[in-house]
Amino acid sequence: MKTINVNLGDKSYPIMFGDGICQNIAKIIKPIVKYDRVVLVCDMNTYPLYGERIIRSLEISFDSVCVIPTGESIKTIETVSEIYRKFYECHLTRESLVITLGGGVVSDLGGYAAATYMRGINVIHIPTTIIGMTDAAIGGKTGYDLPHGKNLIGAFHQPKAVICDFSLMRSLPKAYFQDGMAEIIKYALIRDAVMFETLNSDEIPMRDIICRCAEIKAEIVSEDEKEGGKRKILNFGHTVGHAIETCTKYTDITHGNAVAAGMIAEIRIGEKLGITPSDTAEAVLKLFDKMGISVKADYLPEELISVVGADKKRHGDQIDMILLEKIGRAAVYPLSLKKISELLK
Amino acid sequence: MKTINVNLGDKSYPIMFGDGICQNIAKIIKPIVKYDRVVLVCDMNTYPLYGERIIRSLEISFDSVCVIPTGESIKTIETVSEIYRKFYECHLTRESLVITLGGGVVSDLGGYAAATYMRGINVIHIPTTIIGMTDAAIGGKTGYDLPHGKNLIGAFHQPKAVICDFSLMRSLPKAYFQDGMAEIIKYALIRDAVMFETLNSDEIPMRDIICRCAEIKAEIVSEDEKEGGKRKILNFGHTVGHAIETCTKYTDITHGNAVAAGMIAEIRIGEKLGITPSDTAEAVLKLFDKMGISVKADYLPEELISVVGADKKRHGDQIDMILLEKIGRAAVYPLSLKKISELLK
Repeated sequence: MKTINVNLGDKSYPIMFGDGICQNIAKIIKPIVKYDRVVLVCDMNTYPLYGERIIRSLEISFDSVCVIPTGESIKTIETVSEIYRKFYECHLTRESLVITLGGGVVSDLGGYAAATYMRGINVIHIPTTIIGMTDAAIGGKTGYDLPHGKNLIGAFHQPKAVICDFSLMRSLPKAYFQDGMAEIIKYALIRDAVMFETLNSDEIPMRDIICRCAEIKAEIVSEDEKEGGKRKILNFGHTVGHAIETCTKYTDITHGNAVAAGMIAEIRIGEKLGITPSDTAEAVLKLFDKMGISVKADYLPEELISVVGADKKRHGDQIDMILLEKIGRAAVYPLSLKKISELLK
Repeated sequence: MKTINVNLGDKSYPIMFGDGICQNIAKIIKPIVKYDRVVLVCDMNTYPLYGERIIRSLEISFDSVCVIPTGESIKTIETVSEIYRKFYECHLTRESLVITLGGGVVSDLGGYAAATYMRGINVIHIPTTIIGMTDAAIGGKTGYDLPHGKNLIGAFHQPKAVICDFSLMRSLPKAYFQDGMAEIIKYALIRDAVMFETLNSDEIPMRDIICRCAEIKAEIVSEDEKEGGKRKILNFGHTVGHAIETCTKYTDITHGNAVAAGMIAEIRIGEKLGITPSDTAEAVLKLFDKMGISVKADYLPEELISVVGADKKRHGDQIDMILLEKIGRAAVYPLSLKKISELLK
């Protein structure tokens, strides 16, 4: 079992990788965290596939399972309130544990509910998607969407562990796989040119790639937990990507496709400014094409610009845009909203 | 202007006391926190009384004011969502500031909205009640109620400052005054026997007493921000008090009366266990009577016990009860639910 550590003082925790390790989840958790009661938060995809083996290992009943619907559009306060209700029915205390089993939506919502129930109880994430294992489950960002914008409400709440069982990914639908690949390409673009080469090759060692992405995320979070500086580079592709999701109401496009389209838009901004080498968008589009990732998105540019203006990363009339200086290196460039509007047109 | 500090490393902040200091709120805030935009959260009591002078000093428009209804029963997600909507309409960013103006309900809700909007923006509290100045606005506890229990949802979010302007208390209705006195008596009982004597005397120096209570709260929070140990003694009277509020649906009894009734119940538990001297309840009831504080509450004992069992301070089958060892000294006593049920009957 490979382990990567997120180093955050007394909030440090391990990210563990293995094949079939969820069969023995209780044994893995035991040395990490004590708990009196446990609730498993999963969704309608993950529960029928993997719920039973987790429940059996934890020796809990179905009453302790909270099954939420699937999809980005359920990241609402209504779903969070449903999770709170289950916590209450299960008599969770401050010494209880929440386990999430699913993709980024499940860890975002279950993590937020854990962050705010009784002002914070322990959570462990078991991601079942590439995005979960490489990004969403690591770093403590939790939250939900307002109708006006993605992840507008949230809390930092570091998990006690992230347990990545590769065997849970076997049944991943193609769309989830592509979502994950978009996020993996992001890591290559901001931090690892060698990985970008590997992704362009014929044989891709997926498990190694996933571990490497988790390692990059762990390194960056360890240096900057609350996104005061360096962690911002993880938002590459997301400023425009989130805005695209808002404009399309989270329904017409997957998160990965939105981020892919966002990365291309942000690379083009960098190219126009002379920061990003001029052949970059072309090279990245070629890789997207190889992976079958579409960057088509249907929105009005004016609407997009208005939504970008409400971005969390805005300060005053500026937004911290993440631009590529080359493949494998990203940096923060504060740009005025006016400038961004011009460049996005 | 008297200042007391809450010492929490890089989260330290001042509690400032004075008469009429809110006339110059912008000047007071300026050296403490930078901000691009500001929203004032107040309620239907505080807005007409004091809103204008704050708005004028801050040089903001009415569009930047969020006026919420009054009363404990509005501590719901619906009110929090209303506040979020105002934040969004005002284009708040991570560099913005929220100012709350009101009692504990306003600082709890406005503080929670600030804690969770964009994963946390700065907040300054201007309490207008005795409870606000001595308790609610200090220490970073924020949150709202679920139908099942008080403050079940919440976050720790320390303010950047607490500004106590005694001139804002002049119009305090009698019920609020009594609520405040109940909380002041709590501080005397857990930490300051001399204050208990002073409260029993004919002349009560209210401003000094309020400052002393804030000082006790600041000391305890500085030692134990997240309520791992010592801070629990601040919950004296609140385990039973909150349960009484839940049983009466927060409508038939004020917070202060519920806490007063809770303190008497918890003193009697201590007396039955031989921890609290046997004449204590009598002495405290005499002081309540002098202050005009009622401890009458209408609820079924069975229901009360069931609600106590869902208390946040429960761990496993035990609850950390705060018991008085004498007037002026409280300590944590973990008791089983079964034992508490017997003693409450």
